[in-house]
Amino acid sequence: MTIKIAVLPGDGIGPEIVAEALKVLDSLCTDFGLAVETEHALIGGAAYDVHGTPFPQETLTLCRAADSILLGAVGGPKWEPLDYSLRPERGLLGLRSELELFSNLRPAVLYPQLVAASTLKPEVVVGLDIMIVRELTGGIYFGKPRGRRINEHGEREGYNTLVYSESEIRRIAHSAFQIARKRNKRLCSIDKANVLECTELWREVVIEAGKDYPDVALSHMYVDNAAMQLVRNPKQFDVMLTDNMFGDILSDCAAMLTGSIGMLPSASLDKNGKGMYEPIHGSAPDIAGRGIANPIATILSLAMMLRYSFDDAVLAERIERAVQTALDQGFRTADIASEGTVEVGTAAMGDAIVAALRSA
Amino acid sequence: MTIKIAVLPGDGIGPEIVAEALKVLDSLCTDFGLAVETEHALIGGAAYDVHGTPFPQETLTLCRAADSILLGAVGGPKWEPLDYSLRPERGLLGLRSELELFSNLRPAVLYPQLVAASTLKPEVVVGLDIMIVRELTGGIYFGKPRGRRINEHGEREGYNTLVYSESEIRRIAHSAFQIARKRNKRLCSIDKANVLECTELWREVVIEAGKDYPDVALSHMYVDNAAMQLVRNPKQFDVMLTDNMFGDILSDCAAMLTGSIGMLPSASLDKNGKGMYEPIHGSAPDIAGRGIANPIATILSLAMMLRYSFDDAVLAERIERAVQTALDQGFRTADIASEGTVEVGTAAMGDAIVAALRSA
Ligand SMILES: [Mg+2]
Ligand SMILES: [Mg+2]
Repeated sequence: MTIKIAVLPGDGIGPEIVAEALKVLDSLCTDFGLAVETEHALIGGAAYDVHGTPFPQETLTLCRAADSILLGAVGGPKWEPLDYSLRPERGLLGLRSELELFSNLRPAVLYPQLVAASTLKPEVVVGLDIMIVRELTGGIYFGKPRGRRINEHGEREGYNTLVYSESEIRRIAHSAFQIARKRNKRLCSIDKANVLECTELWREVVIEAGKDYPDVALSHMYVDNAAMQLVRNPKQFDVMLTDNMFGDILSDCAAMLTGSIGMLPSASLDKNGKGMYEPIHGSAPDIAGRGIANPIATILSLAMMLRYSFDDAVLAERIERAVQTALDQGFRTADIASEGTVEVGTAAMGDAIVAALRSA
Repeated sequence: MTIKIAVLPGDGIGPEIVAEALKVLDSLCTDFGLAVETEHALIGGAAYDVHGTPFPQETLTLCRAADSILLGAVGGPKWEPLDYSLRPERGLLGLRSELELFSNLRPAVLYPQLVAASTLKPEVVVGLDIMIVRELTGGIYFGKPRGRRINEHGEREGYNTLVYSESEIRRIAHSAFQIARKRNKRLCSIDKANVLECTELWREVVIEAGKDYPDVALSHMYVDNAAMQLVRNPKQFDVMLTDNMFGDILSDCAAMLTGSIGMLPSASLDKNGKGMYEPIHGSAPDIAGRGIANPIATILSLAMMLRYSFDDAVLAERIERAVQTALDQGFRTADIASEGTVEVGTAAMGDAIVAALRSA
């Protein structure tokens, strides 16, 4: 079966880093027999410049037809003056909601070669390997009613609604349990059940879903304590399950524990495992076009795609090992460079990883 | 003028640690001429055991009449089976809302003597001194409508409302600006204005309030980035202004950066500066009655009371210096003990601080 991948380079450094991931994909085809078709489309600012919208219909059509999506990054100062509805980010949000990509996987993995980049003591973070499973299409970021009004005292008032139905909670819970099963079988669900009724239901439904996974150890933690524990002893976590907003906050906190967010991929999956894969770092307009961006997070996004959408853990691990080999050989892009390593550009890093892949 | 302080020891280690703070208060009276009257009352589980309620009317009456309140801690496994409305925590929440203690001050200060206790590298946290000003009586923890319902698909649904009026935002903003003025004159307001309309209003009103404080440098940061920055470079912050929930999460994260939450006091102020002062650590029922709890956070809460309710920075600094002296002399309670220090109990730590206060 030929896999169809929609490729959306996006803005800023997006095209440069995606190009390196495609080199890796080429090698998987040529050297390891993977059958892939790729087709490119515009999204974000790049799409706005051509079509007047950050999310053209033909991009959506392509992404619907594809088996999965590889995305670079969107956004940049050029498009910031635009109306909210035309901003590059709307392209991303549009894709997530049109394709119902409700399960956001945010690994926080510390590469031993980069342990010095963390602000935490080596012993606290070495071996760190957390997977945050974040609900991505519901909760307070989408809940209604929302907006502004004048209250009964004649004052301005702003309001948003945190809301989850049991089916929304159940599907993300199953997603998290299944991932925990493929890892160390420990799932910690995050809520504020002592104060927020919505998250009290969250806890209830997660417990119900857990009955199907007696092999996974389920625990619960309040969100404020989770923020503490990520700093105190992050290695206590295997998989964390969160709602949309708590996941937004905690996944960024967890990512920064590694000290090198240029290394971190992510996935956003639908209920069939189709997904959009992208680095967590942004479009970095300040260094765009200079050939110095770190392509590793995008290359690791491709590895995630193989593991989570195409169930090919073997090829995923090959890519991950190739990244490790390139790091072991001392190659570093500017963002992760340190003394005694070889600073290389985007393309050279991609080449080093492809070479490692071939010689493994 | 004689200051009236309501003393609420509460549960668990509360009575032990409050007793040490009262020793310090005695010394301030005897040795430094402070005129204070104290009166004790029950709150939390201790109040429930006597009066059948965690928040007796006479405690409220005493606290209303007092100029400020010193609290130990509430809660414990003994009262966990009780109905939500009778739990010890309701006593605290009752006081906050009855007295309109909307401004929660949460310092995160790293004592140089305890730098090894942090999980972060010394250079990242040495000299850390952040003040988080958290809105405490509004936002999603109190917003209505809230609860559970059956939605149109016949499913359970949980919902809560994030809501702030401009007057609620304005008063906490002024609180934060005034505190920033007494510190390094930098205020970073936390929101998610790119997604949540309620926090978009938050940003607007904070900017409006800031016009009265041209000497304070105001900046804004999204909450997920703030969680990242606390890990990446916490010393960039002076005062952080947050809503209730973001402050709940970020203040605990910031506290844990210090590695020793047994050292951290807090204040909850009304619009006139009257306040409730308490350590951020809990009632620690596991070590209650053993004389080993760390009284320093409670003693530093007393210092905060002098500074923020009675505008006596001189006495506040005396207490803070006395704590430093006791640490310099090597005294440590079990929670902060390390090699080469002298492990002491609760009372001995209190005595060491009083001795340092007197000999300064
Ligand atoms: Mg985020
Ligand atoms: Mg908290």
